Amino acid sequence: MSQTQTFTVIGMTCSHCVASVTEEIQEIPGVQDVAIDLPTGAVNVTSIEPLDDAAVKAAVEEAGYQFA
Amino acid sequence: MSQTQTFTVIGMTCSHCVASVTEEIQEIPGVQDVAIDLPTGAVNVTSIEPLDDAAVKAAVEEAGYQFA
Repeated sequence: MSQTQTFTVIGMTCSHCVASVTEEIQEIPGVQDVAIDLPTGAVNVTSIEPLDDAAVKAAVEEAGYQFA
Repeated sequence: MSQTQTFTVIGMTCSHCVASVTEEIQEIPGVQDVAIDLPTGAVNVTSIEPLDDAAVKAAVEEAGYQFA
């Protein structure tokens, strides 16, 4: 079982930004896949169990971006 | 003796881009310092001897950006 949640991240401007956010979110336990759409800032996270918004927010901020 | 030359790079959007370009240019023999102004794309390169435009262009393109 897995599900995908969509979050929005503000401030990503290029593929390096996408890589930084992807990397941080992938470190959250249970995360299986991270797919980011740069133009919209949509971050689709697939995980074994539903993720806490707080954990994703912390990862996004650790990467240096804003969680919306 | 050293001199500083200014080049213009198109396509840098964030600090990761700046880091990529800096890193590639620093690999050119004789380069002592690289200072980039992100908003304008101005790249100031200080080196022991004048650099060939071609060497800087190659480094910029290697980083994935456009030399103007």
